[in-house]
Amino acid sequence: MDFDTIAAISTPIGEGAIAIVRLSGPDAVTMANRIFTSKDLTEVPSHTIHYGKLVDPHSGEVAEEVMVSVLRTPKTFTREDIIEINCHGGLVAANRTLELVLAEGARLAEPGEFTKRAFLNGRIDLSQAEGVMDLIRAKTDKAMNVALKQLDGRLSSLIRKLRQDLIETVAHVEVNIDYPEYDDVEEMSHEVMRQKTREVHDEIESLLEVAKQGKILREGLATAIIGRPNVGKSSLMNTLVQENKAIVTDIPGTTRDIIEEYVNVRGVPLRLIDTAGIRETEDIVERMGVEKSRQALKEADLILFVLNNNEELTEEDLLLFEAVRDFEYIVVINKTDLKRNLNLDRVRELAGDQAVIETSLLEEKGVDELEKAIAQTFFSGEIETGDLTYVSNVRHIQLLKQSKEALEEAMNGIEMGMPLDIVQIDVTRTWSLLGEIIGDTASDSLIDQLFSQFCLGK
Amino acid sequence: MDFDTIAAISTPIGEGAIAIVRLSGPDAVTMANRIFTSKDLTEVPSHTIHYGKLVDPHSGEVAEEVMVSVLRTPKTFTREDIIEINCHGGLVAANRTLELVLAEGARLAEPGEFTKRAFLNGRIDLSQAEGVMDLIRAKTDKAMNVALKQLDGRLSSLIRKLRQDLIETVAHVEVNIDYPEYDDVEEMSHEVMRQKTREVHDEIESLLEVAKQGKILREGLATAIIGRPNVGKSSLMNTLVQENKAIVTDIPGTTRDIIEEYVNVRGVPLRLIDTAGIRETEDIVERMGVEKSRQALKEADLILFVLNNNEELTEEDLLLFEAVRDFEYIVVINKTDLKRNLNLDRVRELAGDQAVIETSLLEEKGVDELEKAIAQTFFSGEIETGDLTYVSNVRHIQLLKQSKEALEEAMNGIEMGMPLDIVQIDVTRTWSLLGEIIGDTASDSLIDQLFSQFCLGK
Repeated sequence: MDFDTIAAISTPIGEGAIAIVRLSGPDAVTMANRIFTSKDLTEVPSHTIHYGKLVDPHSGEVAEEVMVSVLRTPKTFTREDIIEINCHGGLVAANRTLELVLAEGARLAEPGEFTKRAFLNGRIDLSQAEGVMDLIRAKTDKAMNVALKQLDGRLSSLIRKLRQDLIETVAHVEVNIDYPEYDDVEEMSHEVMRQKTREVHDEIESLLEVAKQGKILREGLATAIIGRPNVGKSSLMNTLVQENKAIVTDIPGTTRDIIEEYVNVRGVPLRLIDTAGIRETEDIVERMGVEKSRQALKEADLILFVLNNNEELTEEDLLLFEAVRDFEYIVVINKTDLKRNLNLDRVRELAGDQAVIETSLLEEKGVDELEKAIAQTFFSGEIETGDLTYVSNVRHIQLLKQSKEALEEAMNGIEMGMPLDIVQIDVTRTWSLLGEIIGDTASDSLIDQLFSQFCLGK
Repeated sequence: MDFDTIAAISTPIGEGAIAIVRLSGPDAVTMANRIFTSKDLTEVPSHTIHYGKLVDPHSGEVAEEVMVSVLRTPKTFTREDIIEINCHGGLVAANRTLELVLAEGARLAEPGEFTKRAFLNGRIDLSQAEGVMDLIRAKTDKAMNVALKQLDGRLSSLIRKLRQDLIETVAHVEVNIDYPEYDDVEEMSHEVMRQKTREVHDEIESLLEVAKQGKILREGLATAIIGRPNVGKSSLMNTLVQENKAIVTDIPGTTRDIIEEYVNVRGVPLRLIDTAGIRETEDIVERMGVEKSRQALKEADLILFVLNNNEELTEEDLLLFEAVRDFEYIVVINKTDLKRNLNLDRVRELAGDQAVIETSLLEEKGVDELEKAIAQTFFSGEIETGDLTYVSNVRHIQLLKQSKEALEEAMNGIEMGMPLDIVQIDVTRTWSLLGEIIGDTASDSLIDQLFSQFCLGK
């Protein structure tokens, strides 16, 4: 494909030692060469680094002292010629370098445009491109491993294999429909179709089984802490933040200007909901009322429901038990350093299958048990990212669910003895849905929309 | 010199496309080679780039997909072997890569340690090293140009020349003291000493003359906006911020966690004092009282004193005129869209030499004139960074002032006919003071302290 030459700052904005201005496209080398005076970059071998000065060709003044990397097509990230200019970090130096290359005719890259080119030029598929973004946004080691595997093409290979199976089956059936002169053809085709759709269906099902974990690894476990006033909600929040490495993301920029707080609990990234609210006031339930709390809980993957060991269950506690009934939750009985006035049996009865953990946050007791319980809510035993292929992306999960449904319709059709050319429609639809995951059958607008969520310079 | 191998993340922390982990030292290449499996890095030529995967040698698992640059001594920033690992941006990927190289035996670099090595290994002198940091922290293009020239060694050459002049003079005098058999020796030596000290003194004086501008370009012009309530102080603040590119620095990290607001007015970085305060309340003078305002003004390089065109001068205005008397200030007569009740002649008389600018911020009139006046307060005409050597660093200015004083003492001594071996003490002291600027005579503790102010990874 034929593209223009794009440029962007590819390092985060801020004071740092080094910033990178990256160019990609057919004129990347000649553009850089016009402002780099120390050497002729059009003559140097690929994958080499050159020290020198950038000079503004209009004023003739030295603009920056840089290291320029020359990477020639095709062995590059975008499969185009790439120039990486390592200039001094900081606000002015990187911007000045960028402005110089823009003045030479480069176009400011859109968010994700480098990766989009890697996709459009066939170096990576769509799910790998999404892996790149997930990798950058990863909040924990495990999340990074999931993204790394996706980037490595593990999900892609699996999806490709499933699609291949489906298309071969369709081809086989079509041949037999076209040559119906043999007696047992229809029965055989039915059998092949039944078997193959079942196989692919089961593989998709097992992918979906671990998808919830994948999604949590990727996006974090949205966790809400609830309870009556003074049971120790802020203490619990603070303990979780202090005991574990808090992952505070601060993203300056135009699109996202928020600060999110993540806590890494045994590899599970906890995203603490309404952190500020809980920190500011102890009486979130009082303030919002139980009815409103219920609303707030809807976005939570996990609820930590704190009770006071020193007090009897109140009407409010019972209302909260009612409110969390349909959610995944852990009951935290805090203040075990004080006399027990809580009816533990009653609590266990109310909690049913959900974990009940006793803590004294004041004496730092029970925190380990709580963390173990949190990790085990969604991951039985150790989180193993080694062998499993985790589907972590909501878009992928959605497409897999639709594929599974389409296959189930096909399977029903076979059982009901429907003609194979009707059944085949659902199978072909599955093939197409799976293709959207890797981008083979994705529309241009979907692709544009996906890449626009990337960060600038990637 | 013999050093260990250090490593750090050299790009700002945050979500970005690329992060760089940099190693410097004798084992940089072998350490990187142990975790980079795609190629033998010890065999590749210098200044080349290699795509591949990082593998954790303990678990055997792929840890990251990277580009590794190999830069061998001596043509590197530190004059040591340097490895730059370009990994995916984001919090986890860069940290993981750093942890891998630390596990291989690299030591986490202290702030500024890479630049310190460049200094200790003789690649740059101290004033150049300080130029590196100024470049990263530069708030405007002009500030960057000043830093770039310093980094380029322009100040260093000048200082070296002055030191050479002084040491030659001392040598000349000493020779003559040792061989006093010639009649006219003493007179001749006196004359040489008089002439040379005068020359060096004058050069230092002219450096100091533009130092104030240099310091402002580097650190920003600390600007306070004062005036009675409702004269339009916040409007002025907002106009300056909106009309010009606001430079908002947000530095996450351990040492500095503040947000400063800079406004770039015709190349002069204005650092607006007490921005938040003025924005929150119109009655800063009322709240603080004139006496306290006077205190707050002390840190200002420039005061914008706003009056209301629609009102007569009040007692309070006169007190403010009194308060700003010893400072550089500009009188801003705002609300020229309303009827003039202000006695302009009286204002001009009170303002003396200071500029008086009329504005209607409501109708966006007079802002250009005000900005011109701001720029001209410290820079007559255009700011020219082309030819002048701006001393911008407080440490350098201090040393130059001390040098100038020492030379003045020497010159006094000569006039008073003091023996040359006494005069010579002051000249040698000047030589030593100038040496501290470029680091030739700087103490280890000074050097440690200077580099500790650098950012991590530089």
